[in-house]
Amino acid sequence: MEKLKVGVVGATGYAGAEICRLILGHPQAELAAISSVSFEGMALSSVYPAYAHLCDMVCGTQEQVLEKSDVVFAALPHGLSQELAAQCMRTGKAFIDMGADFRLESEEVYSKWYDGSFADKELHRQAVYGLPELFREKIRGKKLIANPGCYTTAVPLALVPALENGLIEPAGLIADCKSGVTGAGRKPNQQNHYPELNESFTAYKVAAHRHTPEMEQTLSQIAGQEITLTFVPHLLPINRGILATCYGRLKVGVTEEQLRKAYEERYQGEYFIRLLPEGKAANVKYVRFTNFCDISLFVDSRTGSFIAISAIDNMVKGAAGQAVQNMNLAFGFEETAGLKLVPPAF
Amino acid sequence: MEKLKVGVVGATGYAGAEICRLILGHPQAELAAISSVSFEGMALSSVYPAYAHLCDMVCGTQEQVLEKSDVVFAALPHGLSQELAAQCMRTGKAFIDMGADFRLESEEVYSKWYDGSFADKELHRQAVYGLPELFREKIRGKKLIANPGCYTTAVPLALVPALENGLIEPAGLIADCKSGVTGAGRKPNQQNHYPELNESFTAYKVAAHRHTPEMEQTLSQIAGQEITLTFVPHLLPINRGILATCYGRLKVGVTEEQLRKAYEERYQGEYFIRLLPEGKAANVKYVRFTNFCDISLFVDSRTGSFIAISAIDNMVKGAAGQAVQNMNLAFGFEETAGLKLVPPAF
Amino acid sequence: MEKLKVGVVGATGYAGAEICRLILGHPQAELAAISSVSFEGMALSSVYPAYAHLCDMVCGTQEQVLEKSDVVFAALPHGLSQELAAQCMRTGKAFIDMGADFRLESEEVYSKWYDGSFADKELHRQAVYGLPELFREKIRGKKLIANPGCYTTAVPLALVPALENGLIEPAGLIADCKSGVTGAGRKPNQQNHYPELNESFTAYKVAAHRHTPEMEQTLSQIAGQEITLTFVPHLLPINRGILATCYGRLKVGVTEEQLRKAYEERYQGEYFIRLLPEGKAANVKYVRFTNFCDISLFVDSRTGSFIAISAIDNMVKGAAGQAVQNMNLAFGFEETAGLKLVPPAF
Amino acid sequence: MEKLKVGVVGATGYAGAEICRLILGHPQAELAAISSVSFEGMALSSVYPAYAHLCDMVCGTQEQVLEKSDVVFAALPHGLSQELAAQCMRTGKAFIDMGADFRLESEEVYSKWYDGSFADKELHRQAVYGLPELFREKIRGKKLIANPGCYTTAVPLALVPALENGLIEPAGLIADCKSGVTGAGRKPNQQNHYPELNESFTAYKVAAHRHTPEMEQTLSQIAGQEITLTFVPHLLPINRGILATCYGRLKVGVTEEQLRKAYEERYQGEYFIRLLPEGKAANVKYVRFTNFCDISLFVDSRTGSFIAISAIDNMVKGAAGQAVQNMNLAFGFEETAGLKLVPPAF
Repeated sequence: MEKLKVGVVGATGYAGAEICRLILGHPQAELAAISSVSFEGMALSSVYPAYAHLCDMVCGTQEQVLEKSDVVFAALPHGLSQELAAQCMRTGKAFIDMGADFRLESEEVYSKWYDGSFADKELHRQAVYGLPELFREKIRGKKLIANPGCYTTAVPLALVPALENGLIEPAGLIADCKSGVTGAGRKPNQQNHYPELNESFTAYKVAAHRHTPEMEQTLSQIAGQEITLTFVPHLLPINRGILATCYGRLKVGVTEEQLRKAYEERYQGEYFIRLLPEGKAANVKYVRFTNFCDISLFVDSRTGSFIAISAIDNMVKGAAGQAVQNMNLAFGFEETAGLKLVPPAF
Repeated sequence: MEKLKVGVVGATGYAGAEICRLILGHPQAELAAISSVSFEGMALSSVYPAYAHLCDMVCGTQEQVLEKSDVVFAALPHGLSQELAAQCMRTGKAFIDMGADFRLESEEVYSKWYDGSFADKELHRQAVYGLPELFREKIRGKKLIANPGCYTTAVPLALVPALENGLIEPAGLIADCKSGVTGAGRKPNQQNHYPELNESFTAYKVAAHRHTPEMEQTLSQIAGQEITLTFVPHLLPINRGILATCYGRLKVGVTEEQLRKAYEERYQGEYFIRLLPEGKAANVKYVRFTNFCDISLFVDSRTGSFIAISAIDNMVKGAAGQAVQNMNLAFGFEETAGLKLVPPAF
Repeated sequence: MEKLKVGVVGATGYAGAEICRLILGHPQAELAAISSVSFEGMALSSVYPAYAHLCDMVCGTQEQVLEKSDVVFAALPHGLSQELAAQCMRTGKAFIDMGADFRLESEEVYSKWYDGSFADKELHRQAVYGLPELFREKIRGKKLIANPGCYTTAVPLALVPALENGLIEPAGLIADCKSGVTGAGRKPNQQNHYPELNESFTAYKVAAHRHTPEMEQTLSQIAGQEITLTFVPHLLPINRGILATCYGRLKVGVTEEQLRKAYEERYQGEYFIRLLPEGKAANVKYVRFTNFCDISLFVDSRTGSFIAISAIDNMVKGAAGQAVQNMNLAFGFEETAGLKLVPPAF
Repeated sequence: MEKLKVGVVGATGYAGAEICRLILGHPQAELAAISSVSFEGMALSSVYPAYAHLCDMVCGTQEQVLEKSDVVFAALPHGLSQELAAQCMRTGKAFIDMGADFRLESEEVYSKWYDGSFADKELHRQAVYGLPELFREKIRGKKLIANPGCYTTAVPLALVPALENGLIEPAGLIADCKSGVTGAGRKPNQQNHYPELNESFTAYKVAAHRHTPEMEQTLSQIAGQEITLTFVPHLLPINRGILATCYGRLKVGVTEEQLRKAYEERYQGEYFIRLLPEGKAANVKYVRFTNFCDISLFVDSRTGSFIAISAIDNMVKGAAGQAVQNMNLAFGFEETAGLKLVPPAF
């Protein structure tokens, strides 16, 4: 059977390069074309020598990617995906957007946080939000998929079962998140210069990060009521991984057993979610290079707090892996195809 | 003038070694004797080659330290300080305990969290809790000082001004803390074996860490009412530093300006507290090797949350530096003597 | 077709766990049994939570491994493989030894560096040295294979083409090597305790490392004359990788072009060797998690020095990957089966 | 007594910031003015928040520094120091250059490696090379000092006693060096972007680094004959430190004892050189934040090689600390003034 032809726009950024890696190992898809504005004419393996002899494909233009591919993944700065998506729709290609352009349903909210507008409202109506564990049925067979951000995958997966079963208060939710530095991209800057980041740890964009409204949108849809979230991201001096420590207030009388049961039932059959045994805390290291989301649950009976901790690899479940999972759903492949990675343990 | 003679029991652990470093640079104190059970007969510089030619003093016994010193710092596993403190009191020495034996005022609470008892209740009544920015006047001239733990310094300093001015709700406080690995001590174990900790990040002792009652004791004393705290510590793959991200609910009508003013007034004149300008987030890197506690304040007006973030070096303000600060208070020295360190910036 | 049954003795050490990972992805082999003295009765995924849901096989005894497997990989402290190998030979199993017991041909040399003896000289005569790029034909179809150490793979691969073509002097060779810390194993010790190793760098076992005679054996066999080597290993604060910077003196009149041509010809067709373009230096990062050996060549015409730098992942080409490559040769599989890994680039 | 007024041109780079730190702790000198092209008008503590409350001096212009200072330290890109030095000489200020402009005595060599020329040959004749342990008497009282580079401090200190006593062959010397990343400066670039450098290790500028002729100049002066050196630098994923592993061939009959004795005698009384006991290898960690150079010696009697390993902090003994040591010599202060730092051991 002929393989699905995959194109990657923005292939030399971290998310783009990671999509290439996953597609190279996918049984039903193949890399057809890649593009890069900064590295046009250079092989991907010149930019990432780890890929030498494995992916020496040369970066072309966005147009070439569009021409050669059945599905286009776009890893672009926000604002640039709308026109590209429109082109894909016109030419019958599928489009999976790694950026924020199609994630928010409300143009008002998008405009407030991203200072942009919806160029084509009809296009936005076609887009589905690609968080398969929460919205799987909506994604199947779709052509225009907004792939969630990293925090916006980790936090809802940690909170949803408690919220949709009414086991915690919908008010006062807090997400204290810690991310590896690849989340900030490949472009060098002062903060992520090795001597500055090494041996450091800090919060950033405190209560002001753009992923906030996206998480609130997901949580509100699940809870069936408007949810607000206090969100504080931190920057870890490691390459990969997000740990989301989420706090909620237990509803009166709710037990740890009830909570654990709700999570077990909700995520039963979800290949990519690993609910950890009681007492074990999720660790970013154990999900590195995989599409897993590990979740651990705790109750502080002294204070009435519920604590759910999720860990993902920000570049896989938080970006490229989830995008491939969405592609699998869109094209009717096995949802786990190309994603059953056995990671190095150290 | 003759210098104060300082002895360190448990000098080869991280806290002990750090006390030695600070005393070597103290204008009014000198290292008189050190002891170590594991390294008796060896020079401190054999254990820490960084100290070669700077501190080649040989480790002796606890008895030798007692005999030669005016003040004894003890960095021992909990339970072992009580008898040593009693000996010091009998012989007129000052005693500064780096461990937990004298930190909790309630024997019941101590017994619950540490599974021990107060050998001599009178001795416990003499002990003062050495967090100078909160309890300075009680510490002056005292002979028996319980030096706080690391988390238990960072969290109260972040929350106290808001709490004592009634600007946040006393209920529902959360401390999401992240610590460098030296906090776990010098003894090798699996979790802190380099290949395992490197590129990892996880929570541990979730809602079950022994520093919890100590923080609650301090916060309750300041607030004048019983406070409980949800406390989740995490382990950072860096050597030094604690970042405490503390969450509270704003009382109705309280503004960020009011909060900032309360902190400015409360900490005015405190040399070791640096309140950061609006919008700047505290970073463990900027307090490394110093006795500073950096604090940054944020209000999430969308959700009504107050966020105070403090950063300390767990081995200095969180251990050895604060102990020297306490010694200075106890002996009437300038409080900052030996502690005005200009740290390397990178 | 039925898959080859693979057993791993010492599966919870780093090398053993890495063999398990590779076998899980091998198209013609399957993990049949694993053993561990320290973790008998525990799932491999309890020891390495990264493997949860992917390899929950429980560790049994060495006897169980022997019984259930067609080929046994042994990752044991030196001295313990000889009896196990003998058992395998008696029962018709193949045996691939990750340790040093069968690597040295001379019992005298083994005895000098390892303070042991050859229990069964006939067994040692059956053993082949499993460095496929140098001794491929000897390995095919064999039952008893001594898998080389990590340094002993990196250094000969860097020097052999220059040496066997007589382009450098056989005397005065130097190998200045730097290894990631997983090479020291999973057992915690003081040197590899995170706070001690972090931000450190040092040489160890200077001119006294046990891999020295093994490298000299290989180089001497290739050169057809006795070679001695000055070998200085260093410990890098990273998890994986060996960089071997090897120095030799150019024979009079030899040009860089000749050298480069010799390497190109020697390694033409070798899938796992990537000769880097002129001016590019090998980097351990680019071979991480793969079975590649990257090699870069330099000539210092000012001094007459030849510099060959090789990079491998000490746990893959330096251990588990090469062992699987040897298994492939021994059983007539495609040599690259299970080893065409596309690694994460960051 | 009035303190010496110190100015730093290029104060916001790593070397400049480190000079500021050291001068802040110097008993006989004080920071009078600092300049920065990129951060003019900003406080040094805005660039380095670790310095908040400790050095809030604002960066001015180079002219302001010249006006206010008795001695000017310049941390500038090469080529820019010559005019500044001339100005200092005209106005009677001392000038200590952190760059390469005055390090090489031969304009031909300078021109070949740096592609520049000597603007004022007389000025170059006035300059002394500031490596105190080798050229102390020439430095005393001088006004124009070329501070050596980092590698060019570590390598000669490791080799000189063996070379000047004729214990090793002057031909065939090799320096395999490894440097922390601060040596590459504060300006972000792709190679030193955290995700790229983290978990990496590579050589760079193999046999082509500009420090080569500087080391050869020093070694030749000491040996009294022309010395060439094979020099391969590597980049370590740590912030600070250089480890220089230097190889030479023993002259016939020379013993380890003779070598050790030569080093002991040569460096007797040198406060900043710590000769390590037999069998101990130098480690960059143990010299961090100090002006020490640790040296360890090894003989490989099997191969006739001599191995000398030196460790320095590239920012202190390899830059700012040595510059202060030179200032002390130039102004007749105690050579160790401001440099007897007790470093943190972890």
